[in-house]
Amino acid sequence: MESNNRAKVIFQPSGRRGEVDKGITIIEASRQLGVDIEALCGEKKVCGKCKVRIEEGFFEKYGVHSSKAHVSEWQEEEDKFITPKMREEGYRLGCVAKIVDDLLIFVPEESRAGKQVVSKAARDIHIEWDPAVKHYYVELVEPTFEEPTADFERILDELDRQYGLTNLSIDYRALRKLPRRLRDPENKWKCTVAVWMDKEIIRVLPGKVDDYYGIAVDVGTTTVAAYFCNLRTMEVIDTVSMMNPQCKYGEDVMSRITYHMMNPGGLERMSNDIIEGINTLIARACDATHPPKPKKKKKDNGEGLEETAPESASGVDGAAKESVPPNDEEIMVLHGLPEAKKYLCLHPNDIIDITIVGNTAMHHILLQLDPEFVGLAPFPPVVHRSLDIKARDIGININESAYVHVLPNEAGFVGADNVGVLIAEEPYKSKEIQLIIDIGTNGELVLGSKKKLISSSCATGPALEGAQIAFGMRAAPGAIERIKIDPETHEVDYKVIGRDAWKSYSKPEEMKAKGICGSGILDLLAELYTAGIVLKSGKFNKKQKSPRYRLNPDNKQPEFVIAWKEESSIGKDIVVTQKDVRQIQLAKGALYCGCKLMMRRMGIDKLDKVKIAGAFGTHVDRQKALIMGLFPDCTLDMIESVGNAAGDGARAALLNRGKREEANWVSRNVEYIELTVEKDFQQHFMEAMQIPHMTDKFPHLEGVVPPEILNQK
Amino acid sequence: MESNNRAKVIFQPSGRRGEVDKGITIIEASRQLGVDIEALCGEKKVCGKCKVRIEEGFFEKYGVHSSKAHVSEWQEEEDKFITPKMREEGYRLGCVAKIVDDLLIFVPEESRAGKQVVSKAARDIHIEWDPAVKHYYVELVEPTFEEPTADFERILDELDRQYGLTNLSIDYRALRKLPRRLRDPENKWKCTVAVWMDKEIIRVLPGKVDDYYGIAVDVGTTTVAAYFCNLRTMEVIDTVSMMNPQCKYGEDVMSRITYHMMNPGGLERMSNDIIEGINTLIARACDATHPPKPKKKKKDNGEGLEETAPESASGVDGAAKESVPPNDEEIMVLHGLPEAKKYLCLHPNDIIDITIVGNTAMHHILLQLDPEFVGLAPFPPVVHRSLDIKARDIGININESAYVHVLPNEAGFVGADNVGVLIAEEPYKSKEIQLIIDIGTNGELVLGSKKKLISSSCATGPALEGAQIAFGMRAAPGAIERIKIDPETHEVDYKVIGRDAWKSYSKPEEMKAKGICGSGILDLLAELYTAGIVLKSGKFNKKQKSPRYRLNPDNKQPEFVIAWKEESSIGKDIVVTQKDVRQIQLAKGALYCGCKLMMRRMGIDKLDKVKIAGAFGTHVDRQKALIMGLFPDCTLDMIESVGNAAGDGARAALLNRGKREEANWVSRNVEYIELTVEKDFQQHFMEAMQIPHMTDKFPHLEGVVPPEILNQK
Repeated sequence: MESNNRAKVIFQPSGRRGEVDKGITIIEASRQLGVDIEALCGEKKVCGKCKVRIEEGFFEKYGVHSSKAHVSEWQEEEDKFITPKMREEGYRLGCVAKIVDDLLIFVPEESRAGKQVVSKAARDIHIEWDPAVKHYYVELVEPTFEEPTADFERILDELDRQYGLTNLSIDYRALRKLPRRLRDPENKWKCTVAVWMDKEIIRVLPGKVDDYYGIAVDVGTTTVAAYFCNLRTMEVIDTVSMMNPQCKYGEDVMSRITYHMMNPGGLERMSNDIIEGINTLIARACDATHPPKPKKKKKDNGEGLEETAPESASGVDGAAKESVPPNDEEIMVLHGLPEAKKYLCLHPNDIIDITIVGNTAMHHILLQLDPEFVGLAPFPPVVHRSLDIKARDIGININESAYVHVLPNEAGFVGADNVGVLIAEEPYKSKEIQLIIDIGTNGELVLGSKKKLISSSCATGPALEGAQIAFGMRAAPGAIERIKIDPETHEVDYKVIGRDAWKSYSKPEEMKAKGICGSGILDLLAELYTAGIVLKSGKFNKKQKSPRYRLNPDNKQPEFVIAWKEESSIGKDIVVTQKDVRQIQLAKGALYCGCKLMMRRMGIDKLDKVKIAGAFGTHVDRQKALIMGLFPDCTLDMIESVGNAAGDGARAALLNRGKREEANWVSRNVEYIELTVEKDFQQHFMEAMQIPHMTDKFPHLEGVVPPEILNQK
Repeated sequence: MESNNRAKVIFQPSGRRGEVDKGITIIEASRQLGVDIEALCGEKKVCGKCKVRIEEGFFEKYGVHSSKAHVSEWQEEEDKFITPKMREEGYRLGCVAKIVDDLLIFVPEESRAGKQVVSKAARDIHIEWDPAVKHYYVELVEPTFEEPTADFERILDELDRQYGLTNLSIDYRALRKLPRRLRDPENKWKCTVAVWMDKEIIRVLPGKVDDYYGIAVDVGTTTVAAYFCNLRTMEVIDTVSMMNPQCKYGEDVMSRITYHMMNPGGLERMSNDIIEGINTLIARACDATHPPKPKKKKKDNGEGLEETAPESASGVDGAAKESVPPNDEEIMVLHGLPEAKKYLCLHPNDIIDITIVGNTAMHHILLQLDPEFVGLAPFPPVVHRSLDIKARDIGININESAYVHVLPNEAGFVGADNVGVLIAEEPYKSKEIQLIIDIGTNGELVLGSKKKLISSSCATGPALEGAQIAFGMRAAPGAIERIKIDPETHEVDYKVIGRDAWKSYSKPEEMKAKGICGSGILDLLAELYTAGIVLKSGKFNKKQKSPRYRLNPDNKQPEFVIAWKEESSIGKDIVVTQKDVRQIQLAKGALYCGCKLMMRRMGIDKLDKVKIAGAFGTHVDRQKALIMGLFPDCTLDMIESVGNAAGDGARAALLNRGKREEANWVSRNVEYIELTVEKDFQQHFMEAMQIPHMTDKFPHLEGVVPPEILNQK
């Protein structure tokens, strides 16, 4: 039976198919059918990334309604991104075109949202052992007529006597299990009690149980990373990460807030997605502690191919299905666990604590706190302080009585992720004046020392992450991540993610370049500048003779070819345009200007240290950053990459409850400065767009950048 | 399509029908189809109350399988309760007979579980105003760039400044609603905050809201009563009550514990039933605050008969469907509210606090705490102290962020209901030595004064509630509740529930007596004794000549006819048997012996006051109780009925948080005494079975009981 309100849709080349409601956009259909299409702008019809081609063949094949278009009418917004020729070929914007009837849709490679390369390993940081949840072992006396005290009070008395714990409560779910746990036939009246914050009993296990586990999660706008830890030994058992499943609603924070505002139920949908994502990470981390599953094989009962589920999968519901079979060697190498401990065979239920960091918007969306006002001046968050919420209340699949600890927010644009960075880096304990930068879609900046800390955010925009750039893309296979330009010949050499050999050592067709990612973009502009192709002002040098320099035939704007068509996998030249250069200038100008204004506020003109957190910090070429003038008055040796410091902060809060207090303290004692309302902001911002900044001195660039370029007016 | 594993079952006279799984008992089928059959013993096959008649006609009508019985084979246990003649007529025990195939079953009136008459109005007790949840009104300053503090901290700062409240947390669900509530267009940045225990914000409403509401619930083994209160004015807006829906699993505490032990999932089922019951009461109480619904009428749209749902029903899910249309006048009379406040139009969401009392088993079953060990020596409960659990966690349908406060238990057989009695009666503040008795299936006893309190329970058994008595029944229409026996003629006069006129003023066929309820049973034995029909030992006086005295033709045991066949609605004489008298003697002996042993423990031989709590206290004839020798050494003026003191205690804890502390204090400071292990228990118990007690002096009975009877040896 075919319903009149449903249409059959097939996406190529993935071949994914299914029925969807008529009237929804192609992007929405792709989401429902699990097809990844880039939608950097969050369907605001301004990025043009979601081009798809409607395949006419589909109509002919089914032979019905062929006289009637199966897709909604052309809209004006599409003119900007789709040339008349492409329109003839059937191209449409996925966020504009709606499904009228059955469709076959082709998603070109450049429109596909590739899997990002994520590298968020746990750093060694010093944390003192004092987890929020601790185990206590007690041996009780069996009740008698003379002493018929209740089970719960019996435990309390012993915990008080032996460990001095008083005023404990108990989660009702742990209480429900208590009588049987105490009367376990093999461990009669001996048990291990898990106590949260010396306040609440969240689990009672029979007998003596040494090890217990927790997980620290860093919810980034793009990437979610989780550190699975043994709370007794503080070991990181595993690090797991994935793309933030919310990416399909928009690449940056603002487009997700917009998605919430435009779509009833959107907030809940995005929240559910990230919760489900975290649950998937938890299930994966647990599955990796189990022996490998048997290979698929035919069962004797003739029920066909079916994977034999390991015991671990029981009770872990949906999440367990996502599990990746663990690689034996990998576990050994990654975690260095002795043979005996290799297979801990843990289940999500064994995780009895979780900490979460994220920027204010991610924080709010996760908890379904209305993020609208975070995106609206004066950007007040719904809450600053840390929150302890029962994991079951928000659907996080760990032990049923465990709490989720969400770290505090500083301000609307400086969230719990920045607090994580702070408690990991502890600038408030240092005499040195540190500038700590976490570059995502927004730059989060903290400046100061033990005397005082101020924070602010600057609208770097997503350019440094590859968005709003003609050929920008995420750090996924095929992305150009390193670029060199010969100052003489203006010849370009580059490297793409997923291929070790540089272009100069490869055949053109081997490169399969698809676009440029964040670190490539920074490299690119530094190289363009050093080679004299782009002037200090950011304008293309029109006097140059490079065969790669040209005016775009359509819009007559200057552009520079980085990879020729034959080196690309998208069937066209990959170029950087004048507009792209402007975007990068805006980003670097915002960052520089932010730092500079903060220094003015602090009354200082010198930094001792610049710490760059996050993936950008890990990948950025420090010298190129200096050439670009990303940070004010800074030398190479002052710059330090601190990796995923936000995640380290989450881990610190997991393993040490004092860090939670520290986080709350710091979140209220960092003074947040709204830069855009600072005096002279516009002027500073304009000046900062120059490459490098005009007021800086450049001893460190001598010998790196030719003097005639450095001294341009 | 008919499945082979299902059978059609019709119950008469109700006509309820449906399909059930083959192999289940008739009792189980009656439950599934919503037919009430008495099952006092909880299907332990010992009470014989669940007799049903299998109607053979059913077979003939359908004409199939008529050669094969549609019901399982006769079992030995049935011999005790079903005579050979009845067996021939098709009688079976519903808890024994299993459904083999389609059946038509007749439920005789005596086997039907009638609707109990419940009378639990709220007494006037003195409570100081200090509810656990309080309202605070604040006016906030809108955020600016200079002061962009988060919404939550903005409220906190003002609550601290204005009311000195510090260290408040907030329920995540209240937090989710906060941003919109603060920005309500009509009440911008003015709001009313509900704070629980000066610790946690559970609701923020826009503007100034004066009144707020709570509910106190007394979960009795048989009856559930709820007091709906205005937390600002302390008024009881309404009192609602119902049968405990768990009655279908067994009449008394032990049979419910047994049901849990014998049935996987039984605990959850019983818990769900009582939670659903409480939700029904809540919905009813709320519905009664709305104007009457329009009468049923045909809708114009032709969708047939449908009641127009009032606004209140939205969002209250299942519970609202149970609501009873309120009676305009009734509300006026019952609550005495001024016209303007008559229709408060409240919804369950408006209830922001709830307190619950119940005996230890009811407490445990409600919270799904394993009650098995409460029924097993030395009877330790799972928990003593009070619990605060989010209402949403256990499915109680009030405000989503509100807590349930469950009062503490003293011991396995003296539960939160007794604590409720204590904080309502406050014997620990009195110089008088009080004996407080709460008679249910178990007698709960507290003895003492401000110096010391001891408690214990005595196994009165359910006889005083009408169970385990040949014609015993609950206090429902048709139950004999008052009896007088002429000492000369031995003629019986009596009154039934539901009919004002006594038998002597009625025609026999008007009485429609069905059985005897608790207060009737006590009356009966006192009258039998005073009339010389029953001796001090409890044996029937064989010398008597009463035409009502006879030997049962089947078992040759003595019995006394209270109502002749023509006065009854069950087609037979209603009698009291020698066994019945023994049951009542056991109950009164247990109670008397319990009191006496407690007095010995306290080292006292005199009481100042005897308080009887519960329905039994309300209905009992104090003089008859004295004749029976229910309490030791006691005079009429010392006896006081204190009504539903357990419910009053729940209400006190709702309106005054100090009472919650008091409850926890008293639950740990009343010394529980296990009477059955006391020295001489058996001897005391045997002696106490005499009517009245042999060692007592009876000045108060002179002139009431003839001296020759009083002075029997």
